[in-house]
Amino acid sequence: MPVLIDSQDTHTPMEAALAQAWRSLHHTSPNPRVGCIITTADGQVLGQGHTQQAGGPHAEIMALRDAAAAGHEVRGATAYVTLEPCAHQGRTGPCCDALIAAGIGRVVASIKDPNPLVGGKGFARLRAAGVQVEVGPGAQESRELNIGFFSRMVRGTPWVRLKVAASLDGATALHNGASQWITSPEARADGHAWRARACAILTGSGTVLADNPRLDVRALPTLRQPQAVVVDSHLQTPPDALLFAAQRGVLIYTSSHQDTPFLQRQAALQARGATVVALPSPDGRVDLAAMLRDLGQRGINELHVEAGQRLNGALLRAGLVDELLLYLAPLLLGSGRGMTDLGPLETLAQGQALEFGPVERVGNDLRVLARLPGRAHF
Amino acid sequence: MPVLIDSQDTHTPMEAALAQAWRSLHHTSPNPRVGCIITTADGQVLGQGHTQQAGGPHAEIMALRDAAAAGHEVRGATAYVTLEPCAHQGRTGPCCDALIAAGIGRVVASIKDPNPLVGGKGFARLRAAGVQVEVGPGAQESRELNIGFFSRMVRGTPWVRLKVAASLDGATALHNGASQWITSPEARADGHAWRARACAILTGSGTVLADNPRLDVRALPTLRQPQAVVVDSHLQTPPDALLFAAQRGVLIYTSSHQDTPFLQRQAALQARGATVVALPSPDGRVDLAAMLRDLGQRGINELHVEAGQRLNGALLRAGLVDELLLYLAPLLLGSGRGMTDLGPLETLAQGQALEFGPVERVGNDLRVLARLPGRAHF
Repeated sequence: MPVLIDSQDTHTPMEAALAQAWRSLHHTSPNPRVGCIITTADGQVLGQGHTQQAGGPHAEIMALRDAAAAGHEVRGATAYVTLEPCAHQGRTGPCCDALIAAGIGRVVASIKDPNPLVGGKGFARLRAAGVQVEVGPGAQESRELNIGFFSRMVRGTPWVRLKVAASLDGATALHNGASQWITSPEARADGHAWRARACAILTGSGTVLADNPRLDVRALPTLRQPQAVVVDSHLQTPPDALLFAAQRGVLIYTSSHQDTPFLQRQAALQARGATVVALPSPDGRVDLAAMLRDLGQRGINELHVEAGQRLNGALLRAGLVDELLLYLAPLLLGSGRGMTDLGPLETLAQGQALEFGPVERVGNDLRVLARLPGRAHF
Repeated sequence: MPVLIDSQDTHTPMEAALAQAWRSLHHTSPNPRVGCIITTADGQVLGQGHTQQAGGPHAEIMALRDAAAAGHEVRGATAYVTLEPCAHQGRTGPCCDALIAAGIGRVVASIKDPNPLVGGKGFARLRAAGVQVEVGPGAQESRELNIGFFSRMVRGTPWVRLKVAASLDGATALHNGASQWITSPEARADGHAWRARACAILTGSGTVLADNPRLDVRALPTLRQPQAVVVDSHLQTPPDALLFAAQRGVLIYTSSHQDTPFLQRQAALQARGATVVALPSPDGRVDLAAMLRDLGQRGINELHVEAGQRLNGALLRAGLVDELLLYLAPLLLGSGRGMTDLGPLETLAQGQALEFGPVERVGNDLRVLARLPGRAHF
């Protein structure tokens, strides 16, 4: 029996398609998160679905299969899809062709595919086949849901999200390094959910040496682990570091030293499965901007940074951070290690301006999302 | 025509009485904020009012006058009042007698007067006169609204609210002292509203010397200015400080030096209208706990602290702070002056735990209310 969507309801078909897309949050990368709802002209749902893991079917195919499995005829129906249907042969067949072959009469899409090589081709192919096409409903939410995919397609680099956990007065650790745990178990689990949606988690070798983090997703089930990325100018990451424990890629960015001890360390890390990439900056460190371009080429949409104040500060000062994901604990520490090393400032205007997004209670803590002004305008 | 309060409405008579009480937020001190609604048995409002400035009529008298002005008969009516009606002759006559004389048949009060000398006497006198008395509805909100009055009556000391404005990473100023302005005009205006409800605003002589603040209410109209209080061990407050500009009392707490230069400075400050109080601690500073007891004796309900990190830290370490009123700007400064000097900590457990209250956007900033655990349980 088809489900009736009440047109007076706040849940429009596109809102239902977006809800489907959100269900794919943790597992489509490097592909976008897309949902699809197929309805009759009067709003009866015939099929629904969302994009599967990379290599698996896209949302439109899942929705067509869902309708077929229920015995629903979709000829002349409307497909609501949160991104332009693809017209190209990737690891899966073109969704446009499947929609046309099924006789879909009308496609309502949230937004054009941001991939400059394919954007608009899906709509053109649908229209050429006589399918009515409308674009726009849900565009903002679909783009937000895929902010990393849009970033990579348009800018060539990932969306960079800096995660910080601190006391309410801004200390991430005491001066002696004590930091476990400033925030609540609920906040740490929430942090894992943000890790889970990222394509990669970045840290610095200093954090690896000091804290030996696993940098994986443990607080919730996940179909795939984000890759690990280490900024490591001097290749100091120990081959027995815990970040090698998870089944996923490990990328280590280094500056180029070619002496024998360096090559030995590199070989040991490669033997652990790491990919070592030399991207030296003129000052002998890692060229962070070049690293982001390289990560973009490797298909990283959202880059989740959990690093110390030096790497955080270096990324900020290089203008490479898009967003701050901050957990603030109900605690005053007076002083301690800061969130970011921005160097000595002479005026307030030299600080890093932000714009607050949603603020929520997570356990006993506050979660604050903030963006660097203008960074989402690409 | 009486206003009908729908019993199905969320606005019960006591909620209406509390709304009246809130209207007296800025001007009743040192008296409590109280509202009163007089209704018929079926909920028709006959009169309403709230406590006026100290020396003026209390809420019950205002409500009785309101009913009389409208020509309403209140004999047998119910009076909803957010605090126990007074039974004693203060600057105004006892409210109990006025309610009894008017023939009020039933009094619903939120909470007993916390003043140990009078608490319960009002209820007893009403009952002795045959008035039906119920206590309880709105108790929590009435107590919260009068947290400073309750604190002074029960603990003998004010409710101490620490106001801090900082960058999101906890800096209240750059290392060079630059701090104007970290937060938005809206946040600063909101800060003035919190000043307006306080009986007194406290700072340290360091802040007076560095910033020369006016410490008055300017961003909104007010019927009275909070008193100014300066912690000034060495009596360094300049007699031409701007805090003397407003029409209100100025209290300066000092440690006891009786040499000639000290006495000269004291005389100059007294000539400006200041009251100088010597409350030395054993280490030659001001005894902050004794200061709070003295402020309680002087009728200070809510003490609004706007000080530097040293005085903030000293108050916290002495266990004298109840609440934090924090404005966080969307700005990272990396490092700078902290909110509070808590000295070097060895473990996270040595930090000052808080409990978050309401968090709201104010202009571009966040306003965070947080309490020290257990402090409101007096």
